[in-house]
Amino acid sequence: MLKEELLKKIIAEKDITIAVAESCTGGMLGGLITSISGSSKIFKGGVISYSNDIKINVLKVDEQIINDFGAVSEECAKAMALNVREIFDVDYSISITGIAGPDGGSIEKPVGTVWMACVDEFGVETFLSNFKGNRDDIRNSAVSLAIQVLYNKIFEM
Amino acid sequence: MLKEELLKKIIAEKDITIAVAESCTGGMLGGLITSISGSSKIFKGGVISYSNDIKINVLKVDEQIINDFGAVSEECAKAMALNVREIFDVDYSISITGIAGPDGGSIEKPVGTVWMACVDEFGVETFLSNFKGNRDDIRNSAVSLAIQVLYNKIFEM
Repeated sequence: MLKEELLKKIIAEKDITIAVAESCTGGMLGGLITSISGSSKIFKGGVISYSNDIKINVLKVDEQIINDFGAVSEECAKAMALNVREIFDVDYSISITGIAGPDGGSIEKPVGTVWMACVDEFGVETFLSNFKGNRDDIRNSAVSLAIQVLYNKIFEM
Repeated sequence: MLKEELLKKIIAEKDITIAVAESCTGGMLGGLITSISGSSKIFKGGVISYSNDIKINVLKVDEQIINDFGAVSEECAKAMALNVREIFDVDYSISITGIAGPDGGSIEKPVGTVWMACVDEFGVETFLSNFKGNRDDIRNSAVSLAIQVLYNKIFEM
């Protein structure tokens, strides 16, 4: 299904609340969710934590996590999703943190490396991707996967 | 100039920090800013305060403002921009709150009504628009205007 169709199914069938924590996508995921009329039924909002400062001071990610593992890491994605779920008091949360390029890549974490975490009442699940393409491609791929991850989590697939 | 060109000029020429507070655009403004490589130089992030609950509990907008004037009001736009500037500790902030439709309009505030506020160290400026078109048109118009407002404020035009 197209990502818009997945969102429409969530909105039509589920009585839940969702929040997002976005780094490399900068708000695109929230922008896509709210492109669907009726999204206010489920979407409360999110934090665009583009700088590490905001990850630490607004999203309350432990500074030690970023020092030890980096902002693009499973640990940071987990903390972002867990914390936004708590701060926004929602049922489901999803985080995205990655390297959209063209700069910022390394051998260990090349451009296209994206970590996500999705949280519900039962716990947290994480996802590592290595997307191909340019900055736009990588960010669009991340948003599409995030919608699929949310859908699968919400419909328990 | 195209909005991407305005953003590139800001990034290239100014040593400043920016944050956003988005309601009806749901993250699109942050998404657009971060579509430009190098935006991390100026953009710290933002709050997507799609629900009133998040405007009040995360952005710390006084509940009385929303009760008295509504979420789509000059007063709410002002509070959103002032508060995100303080919480994110940035030089410039901009807020967007409006009715993207197709539902939610009224005679006093028809679909397309959008309030924005832009804040710098000298104070707050507000903007009321009545955009035409469908949900996508209205949201895209709001994002384009927000970029122009930011540019004018930053370059003192």
